Amino acid sequence: MEFLTRAVIRVPRSTPSEAVQDLIRAEAAVGHELRRQGHLLRIWRLPGAWANVTLWEARDATELHDLLTRLPLHPYMKIRVTPLAVHPLEADAS
Amino acid sequence: MEFLTRAVIRVPRSTPSEAVQDLIRAEAAVGHELRRQGHLLRIWRLPGAWANVTLWEARDATELHDLLTRLPLHPYMKIRVTPLAVHPLEADAS
Amino acid sequence: MEFLTRAVIRVPRSTPSEAVQDLIRAEAAVGHELRRQGHLLRIWRLPGAWANVTLWEARDATELHDLLTRLPLHPYMKIRVTPLAVHPLEADAS
Amino acid sequence: MEFLTRAVIRVPRSTPSEAVQDLIRAEAAVGHELRRQGHLLRIWRLPGAWANVTLWEARDATELHDLLTRLPLHPYMKIRVTPLAVHPLEADAS
Amino acid sequence: MEFLTRAVIRVPRSTPSEAVQDLIRAEAAVGHELRRQGHLLRIWRLPGAWANVTLWEARDATELHDLLTRLPLHPYMKIRVTPLAVHPLEADAS
Amino acid sequence: MEFLTRAVIRVPRSTPSEAVQDLIRAEAAVGHELRRQGHLLRIWRLPGAWANVTLWEARDATELHDLLTRLPLHPYMKIRVTPLAVHPLEADAS
Amino acid sequence: MEFLTRAVIRVPRSTPSEAVQDLIRAEAAVGHELRRQGHLLRIWRLPGAWANVTLWEARDATELHDLLTRLPLHPYMKIRVTPLAVHPLEADAS
Amino acid sequence: MEFLTRAVIRVPRSTPSEAVQDLIRAEAAVGHELRRQGHLLRIWRLPGAWANVTLWEARDATELHDLLTRLPLHPYMKIRVTPLAVHPLEADAS
Amino acid sequence: MEFLTRAVIRVPRSTPSEAVQDLIRAEAAVGHELRRQGHLLRIWRLPGAWANVTLWEARDATELHDLLTRLPLHPYMKIRVTPLAVHPLEADAS
Amino acid sequence: MEFLTRAVIRVPRSTPSEAVQDLIRAEAAVGHELRRQGHLLRIWRLPGAWANVTLWEARDATELHDLLTRLPLHPYMKIRVTPLAVHPLEADAS
Repeated sequence: MEFLTRAVIRVPRSTPSEAVQDLIRAEAAVGHELRRQGHLLRIWRLPGAWANVTLWEARDATELHDLLTRLPLHPYMKIRVTPLAVHPLEADAS
Repeated sequence: MEFLTRAVIRVPRSTPSEAVQDLIRAEAAVGHELRRQGHLLRIWRLPGAWANVTLWEARDATELHDLLTRLPLHPYMKIRVTPLAVHPLEADAS
Repeated sequence: MEFLTRAVIRVPRSTPSEAVQDLIRAEAAVGHELRRQGHLLRIWRLPGAWANVTLWEARDATELHDLLTRLPLHPYMKIRVTPLAVHPLEADAS
Repeated sequence: MEFLTRAVIRVPRSTPSEAVQDLIRAEAAVGHELRRQGHLLRIWRLPGAWANVTLWEARDATELHDLLTRLPLHPYMKIRVTPLAVHPLEADAS
Repeated sequence: MEFLTRAVIRVPRSTPSEAVQDLIRAEAAVGHELRRQGHLLRIWRLPGAWANVTLWEARDATELHDLLTRLPLHPYMKIRVTPLAVHPLEADAS
Repeated sequence: MEFLTRAVIRVPRSTPSEAVQDLIRAEAAVGHELRRQGHLLRIWRLPGAWANVTLWEARDATELHDLLTRLPLHPYMKIRVTPLAVHPLEADAS
Repeated sequence: MEFLTRAVIRVPRSTPSEAVQDLIRAEAAVGHELRRQGHLLRIWRLPGAWANVTLWEARDATELHDLLTRLPLHPYMKIRVTPLAVHPLEADAS
Repeated sequence: MEFLTRAVIRVPRSTPSEAVQDLIRAEAAVGHELRRQGHLLRIWRLPGAWANVTLWEARDATELHDLLTRLPLHPYMKIRVTPLAVHPLEADAS
Repeated sequence: MEFLTRAVIRVPRSTPSEAVQDLIRAEAAVGHELRRQGHLLRIWRLPGAWANVTLWEARDATELHDLLTRLPLHPYMKIRVTPLAVHPLEADAS
Repeated sequence: MEFLTRAVIRVPRSTPSEAVQDLIRAEAAVGHELRRQGHLLRIWRLPGAWANVTLWEARDATELHDLLTRLPLHPYMKIRVTPLAVHPLEADAS
């Protein structure tokens, strides 16, 4: 099933900027991996913020939790999860 | 997977009280049916309100939507859905 | 650019059910048309509610407004709009 | 009576990771103990967060408070409590 | 155990004023009865509003629900319930 | 007149636990004193939290402020104040 | 003591405009009376709304309730009450 | 001084569509007049809603109230007002 | 024109208590000065909090900003500003 | 298209005041540059706060994000973005 998440990221200001850069690089690597696996379907930035909206494919909330906790920035994220049901408009089209 | 819902019910005051009684009887019948099918696992009342908290078992959000819309009182419900992931404390125990 | 909308639909209870069915059919027709035109990219149902999350492609907020007001159910919708920026993860991939 | 709690956990980032692991192990031990005692009936994770939803059996709010403060992670929890009344659907079934 | 409720009352404006007076008289009668029974311990008005804060004694949330639904104005109330635990300051004093 | 307060207490984690114990003892002493003086009429704990609901008797908001600032934990409290009016149900009974 | 209220007024649209004018005239008359009595100290309009902020002098919340319910528009008001304590800056000056 | 308003418009569904069209035409006429007078500086639509954000020039909140109540749709508007102070970036530039 | 502000003050706990006393004395001095100048018309304390409600006279929001930033405690204040329009009840009386 | 932003700025108190002054000077320089480029159309201060409302011209949310992240104070800003559609009143006038 699909889930929509809205994540706001706050790395403590005291984190050395090199460590932040490492985190961002690691996050991108895991992000690409999750896209290849078909779990991370789409991702957008919320303008003006260090925050994103992401569309996920996961078997259930337990797998979604596993995917989200794989993200190196996960400890710095505040995440809101919206479970999504198939809409008849897309069901018709398949 | 399991979902938790919190539903507040508001039938318009203009509904004849007999029609309301019919709705409540029909709701109970469907509720018992959903329990027998293993979809409605637990249900509680919020004290002082016409509202309930319900624990559901459904394949995904699409099936949950189907279950919820089967309820005769569904058109009168305002529902908040929380997707639930397995907690390690219960996973250990299985 | 892309926009995400969350729309909650409330048709007055006094609307004859045939009129509601007509509205739903008309909504589906316009929805299919907007998909063909590449404006309505994805659409999901929020489980348990008459509500949807939709991903739009529009030149700007003015065109988005035009698209949304074409929907037959628009007068009955309460809509929240989120403007979306390209995320580097997708920019890299293109 | 039954209570539903929603707890969000925030251990200060400065806590040494070994101390965090100790807390988590101690929390699991107390959790298992409370399950055996029939106080902690069910527990779920909120996907993407260090947070849980828990179903409790306690004589009253005073006993619930005692149970919650036994948890080693309690000082790091922000908890919302919902008192639950028996729903006629379950009362019928007993 | 004790519960605190905050109830806001809204009788539809179309209710004939005589019917409203009847409701208020019936509410007072039930209120006095619940005080005599030791269930309604204290009650206050929120200034400027048709609303009250009430302190209840009930075995559990199920009994509280029964008490609240006995009130003739209950169908017109929106109620928030707070479960109360014994405070050590009062426990010491007993 | 009577006031209802809801106070949430947060002592900084860096406070030595002995200092916290001293504060709690001092708070209890002042609490007992305020009860004897007829200012602190009732006090309850909110289950699962370091928080309380308290019923006060004070001449006016200025005296209430004086009473609240006498509490040793006051600098660590976030307080919401509700002014209470006499309810006719209690007025009748006097 | 002094209280600050914020009142939003909503007269049902179906009220004949003459009846609304009568209400407004009656409200003004009672308002002038309450000013002369020293209860209504100041009153302001919230720009763009049928709403006001008012500063009251009343013995306690019970008297404030009596004053507010004397207003002919009271049944149409939604009121938020803030109890005010004397500020040292004004206490010094007296 | 300048004010920013955010107004949401809700005309009752029972209003005949011709009356709505008349209101909209009258609103446009007054809007153009207020622009010519230099009171309505800018106006935008919130996409997907019958709502606008407007930038006003008015002597003070009293004049702003007068301007807003001149709008034919004012009785159907819910308005939030933000008072604006000159920003040094623009002060420098003048 | 008049403005109403609601300010909550939070001085960091690490501030030496002598520095806090200096700030409070300086705040009182500036407060008295602003009263003499006819800018600070009234000020009240919110009971139980380090917070105040203040009534200001200022030419516009730009002057109000200048007045507020003159307060020594301003860097520690979180302020909500309400612009006030003249109410007909007071206009009549002048 | 145009966007409206509301930004609240919080520089950590531990920042040396010289560094804060440098940031403010740099912010002003970038602000003037963005005005010259036609991106920053208008800017206002929210009275009493270190916060602003800004009107932007940007191709889309991605460009807006780029503009906002160029601001030296961006890491200290919490920003709310409102996408704006052309209002017929202004469309008519062009």
